[in-house]
Amino acid sequence: MAERIRLEKRVLSENDRLAADLAARFAEAGMFVANLMSSPGAGKTSLLEATAALLGEELRLAAIEGDLATDRDAERLRAAGLPTRQINTGGGCHLNAKQVAEALDEFRLDELDVLFIENVGNLVCPAGFDLGEHRRVVVSSTPEGEDKPAKYPVAFHKADCVVLNKMDLAAALGFDREAFLGFVRGLNLRPDIPVLEVSCRTGDGLDGWLDWVRAERRAALDGPRALPK
Amino acid sequence: MAERIRLEKRVLSENDRLAADLAARFAEAGMFVANLMSSPGAGKTSLLEATAALLGEELRLAAIEGDLATDRDAERLRAAGLPTRQINTGGGCHLNAKQVAEALDEFRLDELDVLFIENVGNLVCPAGFDLGEHRRVVVSSTPEGEDKPAKYPVAFHKADCVVLNKMDLAAALGFDREAFLGFVRGLNLRPDIPVLEVSCRTGDGLDGWLDWVRAERRAALDGPRALPK
Repeated sequence: MAERIRLEKRVLSENDRLAADLAARFAEAGMFVANLMSSPGAGKTSLLEATAALLGEELRLAAIEGDLATDRDAERLRAAGLPTRQINTGGGCHLNAKQVAEALDEFRLDELDVLFIENVGNLVCPAGFDLGEHRRVVVSSTPEGEDKPAKYPVAFHKADCVVLNKMDLAAALGFDREAFLGFVRGLNLRPDIPVLEVSCRTGDGLDGWLDWVRAERRAALDGPRALPK
Repeated sequence: MAERIRLEKRVLSENDRLAADLAARFAEAGMFVANLMSSPGAGKTSLLEATAALLGEELRLAAIEGDLATDRDAERLRAAGLPTRQINTGGGCHLNAKQVAEALDEFRLDELDVLFIENVGNLVCPAGFDLGEHRRVVVSSTPEGEDKPAKYPVAFHKADCVVLNKMDLAAALGFDREAFLGFVRGLNLRPDIPVLEVSCRTGDGLDGWLDWVRAERRAALDGPRALPK
């Protein structure tokens, strides 16, 4: 078991080194990069479809899609006007920095303002792997129940933003919004972490998400990870 | 990377050895064991709560609960009358046979008819680890979307049964039932895999699930893994 732990540490430190390279590339290109994590079916792709429709004329957007299999999500995003590269992980339960670096080679980075990395649908494993992103977004959804932050703390612990999707179903489900907020705030490192309540189906709340993307992009480009222009 | 693959193979083969021990213990005790896998929030715990209420007087049931953190689900099941042991994996994304063997020591196996193992909510990693179970159940739910079998094939590929939960939301969500069934049947090893459509909230369809448990218990006890009584 000690051997396994040592090896995992080595894999992680190799990933950290590649993630630092990615962060430098993102900074040099003046791009803002967000890493989206969630359970399967929480609505990451729907959020990006809506973002493409609402923000695509204002900012130059692109996406990297992580899935075990199929390019269904990449096709959805391309149909929404978002240039997208699909990564299929086979059995892999998360994206790693090496995969992102390879996908990145297919983009002209200096022509992009924002890159969304949609991780494999998994509330556990992706949280352990830095992809060089500026911000981490966890998408949760009301049908999953209000206690997911407590039961899957690793994803929520270091999140910079929580998007709570499928609010259109909240009343029918008897979703306890206050309980959800309490779990998030009890776990997250930031007392003021934004929790953005949206419905990608109805469009409710998406303005708040777009404002968050705009503001975090500005902050990231001015922040310590960015190189001087 | 070759070293990592070799080590993963060794961890898996150690798990397989422990899983074979578990299978022998289950057979000797004359218990039927089902391993439940799903995304977070698909409804594994709700299904077991309903099962305890509906089948608890007919068969002697128990559960093992896998979660990264908290004993919330074990408390829910105990409140429903199901003797339950909680396993907290810390960061671990699946249960393994060693954890199940340790939890098992707290039960009197000869007093049980059916053991449900509720795996960590994760549609990827649990599928790789045999727990000595007779049957694998994948719980999916309508809000996750109909394409999850295609996007997360490993869990569905070897499933013995798929429970499709939250059918009460299907109409409102525009859930495409035929598409879901097509994805499952296209992936699964068995052309006749049962797909049991239920709503744990309303109780619709649960009779089919109970019948499946009864029938598979009988088949498992008569099958090759069982010792002669």
